[in-house]
Amino acid sequence: MITVLAGGVGAARFLQGLVKEVPPQDLTIIVNTGDDLELFGLHISPDIDIVLYHLAGLADEARGWGIAGDTFQTVEALARFGYPTWFRLGDRDLATCIHRSNLLSEGSTLSEATAHLARAFDIQARILPMSNEYVPTKVETEDGLIDFQRFMVERGAKDHVRRIHFHGIHDAQPAPGVLNAIAEANAVVIAPSNPLVSIGPILAVSGVVDALKEARARIAAVSPIVGGAAIKGPAANMLRDLGYEASAAIIAKLYADFLDVLVIDNVDAALAPEIRALRLLAGRQGLDVVITDTIMKTVEVKVALARTVLAALDIRP
Amino acid sequence: MITVLAGGVGAARFLQGLVKEVPPQDLTIIVNTGDDLELFGLHISPDIDIVLYHLAGLADEARGWGIAGDTFQTVEALARFGYPTWFRLGDRDLATCIHRSNLLSEGSTLSEATAHLARAFDIQARILPMSNEYVPTKVETEDGLIDFQRFMVERGAKDHVRRIHFHGIHDAQPAPGVLNAIAEANAVVIAPSNPLVSIGPILAVSGVVDALKEARARIAAVSPIVGGAAIKGPAANMLRDLGYEASAAIIAKLYADFLDVLVIDNVDAALAPEIRALRLLAGRQGLDVVITDTIMKTVEVKVALARTVLAALDIRP
Repeated sequence: MITVLAGGVGAARFLQGLVKEVPPQDLTIIVNTGDDLELFGLHISPDIDIVLYHLAGLADEARGWGIAGDTFQTVEALARFGYPTWFRLGDRDLATCIHRSNLLSEGSTLSEATAHLARAFDIQARILPMSNEYVPTKVETEDGLIDFQRFMVERGAKDHVRRIHFHGIHDAQPAPGVLNAIAEANAVVIAPSNPLVSIGPILAVSGVVDALKEARARIAAVSPIVGGAAIKGPAANMLRDLGYEASAAIIAKLYADFLDVLVIDNVDAALAPEIRALRLLAGRQGLDVVITDTIMKTVEVKVALARTVLAALDIRP
Repeated sequence: MITVLAGGVGAARFLQGLVKEVPPQDLTIIVNTGDDLELFGLHISPDIDIVLYHLAGLADEARGWGIAGDTFQTVEALARFGYPTWFRLGDRDLATCIHRSNLLSEGSTLSEATAHLARAFDIQARILPMSNEYVPTKVETEDGLIDFQRFMVERGAKDHVRRIHFHGIHDAQPAPGVLNAIAEANAVVIAPSNPLVSIGPILAVSGVVDALKEARARIAAVSPIVGGAAIKGPAANMLRDLGYEASAAIIAKLYADFLDVLVIDNVDAALAPEIRALRLLAGRQGLDVVITDTIMKTVEVKVALARTVLAALDIRP
């Protein structure tokens, strides 16, 4: 059993390789729901959906969100009624959100709704929201506290970030299966996702960090920071705004309490000694650094990266 | 002030002519909501929407429902989750239903939601649902009681109709303004809509028939039956199934308690003496028959028909 902590598109791409290396039914994916939003009267879970669509082979991989070939008739028509147009929810993507919202309004938990959706998309891997509670991430900027999707999509992640706030996280429980999936895994992988707003909310859920610290399996992370920049998204700027270095090394520091292996890109090979030295910080024994190609432009790179990560965790597929 | 009782596409086409002959703000349209359905977690009001789209100039006039050029991505994607596909709700049409459903879930009445939608579509005429309560029409067939839209759309109106049932109608109140709009109008027109399932539900709402009987204005109906057939829809078969003749004369009989003028098509001119003789049935004085072109293929015919109806009601635009 392999457990992956996942944010958005970087995680989804990594998972596409992973499901070719291990039986998908052996995989549990714990997904960030801090990006969730209520819009058009619907519950939208962008990170869950990006994982669903990538694993179902339906994703618009170039764009990194939504369904390939989707159209935008409904969101454009909703503008007439005064709804915001900055969140580009495609027409087929909307069907997923309609079904999720109907399941939730009929009393399903987000876990149950996610399992329904995964089945409908013929996905064998188990996909768990980090929590069944609504814990929307908010970003404190010079204009005040802004909902994450508005910060990210409407405002183009251009604001200086003073603080990141996981609204309601202190009262949120992990979704059923989350802590067990970490505790009982043979390997745990933290996908190459933004450590602050994608993995950060998962780590902030009650019990998750303790489960990681106490996990019997080794824990690897793939750095989303390559050559001092994020492959996609605002991670590098957010890190700098909050006083962190935008470097693969920061990933080891942020995950120091539980990390065993950090996978960094070839371009960051020179950082390896510095990162290995961080083992002194770690609450667990040692910190291996693995250097490989992490730019997942092709399916071959995705599969090779998955294989490298599994090997570093002593998993033989 | 002119008040029109309206069903679906026949009414919508008639209204397109009428708004060219009278100031739209002088017009109140009381619309059948017996066709309403709950589907995809949304409240769909097909007859209200067909009126909205025709008056907004957005209707697919050839097809007689929905928005011209609309696509069907969302309903097709919903099929994956097990939703029925027989109700073809277009992607832009869906936006209307999403907004209506959100307004209703926020506590608006259907009247208020309809007024919102009409404003968003820049419609000056006042559009009132017959009732704010959900009173779905059901059709009793050999397979039992079937929801109207399933009878009509899914099953293609092919079942033998034993009875028509307006579910909950005895407890339903007319929407605010409905009875006053009838009582205070200078003219009342019953649009060329199915008398059983489009106008029938409106007449079944408490107080509507009494308001028509007591109205100070003259009341005209345009026959939807031409040459023994319905211009569109199952009215003729339904009439025959229920033991009525499928003839323009039946319209006069069904509306005998309050009708002053029946407008019939040129092809039915020979029926005029028989219909005029029905004045003996009428609770009101006399029954005029006006013979004209009622096949509203062009905007010129629609305008001419509106002008003829208004003239028969002594209204000079």
